[in-house]
Amino acid sequence: MGSAEPLKVAVLGCGSVGSQVVRLLDEQADDLAARIGAPVELVGVGVRRLDAPREVDVPEGLLTTDAASLVTRADLVVEVIGGIEPARGLILSALESGASVVTANKALLAEDGPTLFEAAAKAGRDLYYEAAVAGAIPILRPLRESLAGDRVTRVLGIVNGTTNFILDKMDSSGAGFAEALEEAQELGYAEADPTADVEGFDAAAKAAILASLAFHTRVTAADVHREGISEVTAADVASAADMGCVVKLLAICELRVQPDGEEAVAVRVHPAMIPRSHPLASVREAYNAVFVESDAAGQLMFYGPGAGGSPTASAVLGDLVTVARNRLSQTRGAGESAYTDRAVLPMGETVTRYHVAIDVDDKAGVLAAVALAFAEHGVSIQTVRQEGRGDDAQLVVVSHDATDAQLSATVTHLQQMDIVREVTSVMRVEGGAE
Amino acid sequence: MGSAEPLKVAVLGCGSVGSQVVRLLDEQADDLAARIGAPVELVGVGVRRLDAPREVDVPEGLLTTDAASLVTRADLVVEVIGGIEPARGLILSALESGASVVTANKALLAEDGPTLFEAAAKAGRDLYYEAAVAGAIPILRPLRESLAGDRVTRVLGIVNGTTNFILDKMDSSGAGFAEALEEAQELGYAEADPTADVEGFDAAAKAAILASLAFHTRVTAADVHREGISEVTAADVASAADMGCVVKLLAICELRVQPDGEEAVAVRVHPAMIPRSHPLASVREAYNAVFVESDAAGQLMFYGPGAGGSPTASAVLGDLVTVARNRLSQTRGAGESAYTDRAVLPMGETVTRYHVAIDVDDKAGVLAAVALAFAEHGVSIQTVRQEGRGDDAQLVVVSHDATDAQLSATVTHLQQMDIVREVTSVMRVEGGAE
Repeated sequence: MGSAEPLKVAVLGCGSVGSQVVRLLDEQADDLAARIGAPVELVGVGVRRLDAPREVDVPEGLLTTDAASLVTRADLVVEVIGGIEPARGLILSALESGASVVTANKALLAEDGPTLFEAAAKAGRDLYYEAAVAGAIPILRPLRESLAGDRVTRVLGIVNGTTNFILDKMDSSGAGFAEALEEAQELGYAEADPTADVEGFDAAAKAAILASLAFHTRVTAADVHREGISEVTAADVASAADMGCVVKLLAICELRVQPDGEEAVAVRVHPAMIPRSHPLASVREAYNAVFVESDAAGQLMFYGPGAGGSPTASAVLGDLVTVARNRLSQTRGAGESAYTDRAVLPMGETVTRYHVAIDVDDKAGVLAAVALAFAEHGVSIQTVRQEGRGDDAQLVVVSHDATDAQLSATVTHLQQMDIVREVTSVMRVEGGAE
Repeated sequence: MGSAEPLKVAVLGCGSVGSQVVRLLDEQADDLAARIGAPVELVGVGVRRLDAPREVDVPEGLLTTDAASLVTRADLVVEVIGGIEPARGLILSALESGASVVTANKALLAEDGPTLFEAAAKAGRDLYYEAAVAGAIPILRPLRESLAGDRVTRVLGIVNGTTNFILDKMDSSGAGFAEALEEAQELGYAEADPTADVEGFDAAAKAAILASLAFHTRVTAADVHREGISEVTAADVASAADMGCVVKLLAICELRVQPDGEEAVAVRVHPAMIPRSHPLASVREAYNAVFVESDAAGQLMFYGPGAGGSPTASAVLGDLVTVARNRLSQTRGAGESAYTDRAVLPMGETVTRYHVAIDVDDKAGVLAAVALAFAEHGVSIQTVRQEGRGDDAQLVVVSHDATDAQLSATVTHLQQMDIVREVTSVMRVEGGAE
């Protein structure tokens, strides 16, 4: 194998992921060569500033600020800069110059994946991105290849470690959101500006990628209904615990057969209660997990570290080996598969269940009046529990499946009722048997 | 895509898996064609007897007892007969005739994989076998591809559903082995002759396949140290529960750096206690799960149904789509990777931990004498607990890591001591922090 021509690798970005990719390319060089069938040679590392501090010693002369020229000199380009530009321009330019590309860039793929997929197809080159969703967890390759002979009907994922750490902390300690966020920031699990994580933008990008692969259609971040966890209160978490549930930020991708028989997809990110017996409920701290349901395979779960330089680099290098092998055998892997071209349902038409806690006046007929409000909007009640007396009187209602529009209208209606002092908690319920 | 030439598929075997493959080939025909880029056409189903009852209606004229001729007429051959012959001969003949092969045959791969891999390489065709380990769970493709840029150090798997069902039942109900086995048989989770499952033969075959892929070396079933669960008692399970553990039949594949710096592999199947906090501990009933540790990715887990016609057929069809795509692009996937050619350690040199329960005479100095016996064999004790008095006096010892030979010699020594009435339970402990 030593006689084969080396494959030239360019790494774009040298942050926490890029530096681990550079380290592993060096440390694992012999194994990579054996597994690929040719050695890989690092020909350059594109950075913004040559003198920034780095986690790894990049060999003399390999650092460059001229990424545009670097990508034209490489057979394999690893893009771990993140964000939309200059990443998009560099990937397109790399493909045009005939390079194969591995990227971890979920934001770019969720915003403008089709442009990249089309450029890869036109160039006859690979564009792989396992590292873009759930870090080291192999989930895209199983969806794209292992389940290619099956019909995936649902993907439920905990795909953001920051929010899972915060919610887990709230569940285990009773802390509120602000306190748990602060602890996550101190421990390095949350950024100084945590918006992308806690408001669900990061999870929504991943949901778009998962839905596209699972359902063979195009879903972008703009198609994803997104709610973050900043409004989740300690009371919500306690209420979930009371009914044997835990609150998780879920990325949910569902295939729904419409009344006309057509299949549509529903893609959303929001906090939800799931039963503690559900496999996703035991995903603790900053771990990620993706739960997949399909017709023939049944229920599968994939679990592991969803972020971090080294785990993400593992996923990047796995892709690098595949695209390098493809290159040597003058082929490319399966490209984008969007043949089903399914409609994306608006959130109002998405079918969900609600958990609603309501402070009510403590008098006869309250339960009947509340039940009537649900019935008026066509929402069937699964359970209703009456708690407390006098000023503490509370009703906790869990609905059966209904459209989000029906449920949302029910909640608005409840808020306007005289006997309702306050709707204290509204949260969707997932992972049940229904 | 309708214009592409159909790919001819032959299915060998029409039992629970084969009949589901036939069903899905028909039901999913349009999706398979879109994902592959060409339609697939079932050209025959090889069976032993034409008139046997089947789960699926095979179209008229497709059933044949002449599998030898059938495989020469197919582009893609699915082997789900199981066992060594005639499966091996038919697979070799299929490859020689230029067909690509998908098989679920763990016993054959574990016994004679290299012969098949060499035949596939010589023919320039694919031999895929995701369904051979852990049913529908995508685990071989992640090991072979997703983790190809990482260094896997350990694989811990619950890869046999029958034994997991029995052990789970013993744990939840306090039943003994015989009673739990009977229930498993009544529910269809265990065969009338349960030997292959309960004595660990099935898990050992899967362990050999997992170790080969994880460590890029050749491991056969004969290399795997194998102990079943028929000797596991209700007392063992209760003793595990006392220390916060659960008993599972584990397939364990480890990379061990030897004193000379060389890396060797240790592969074994045996019942072991694992902490209830370990992700594998919550794998209930007949589910399977595989836990993987690697340098860069950290800890990953893959979970799902490990057997059954329909889940196994899902894995078979996933492979079928891949090999069909490869065929259309005139390439083949990564073949066997056995370049490391590592030694397989004998069980005596394998490093493990023991949990030992000992009925002892209730007199002063017993604990010291037992501790001395461990020390004489170079085994360090992690915890020792003294329970009961008089005739019920018992010591429960958990060791630190030591070689299996040292631990085994310690147990023999204990059995010969005057103050020891009986060594009532010996079980290995896995999944700990050590």
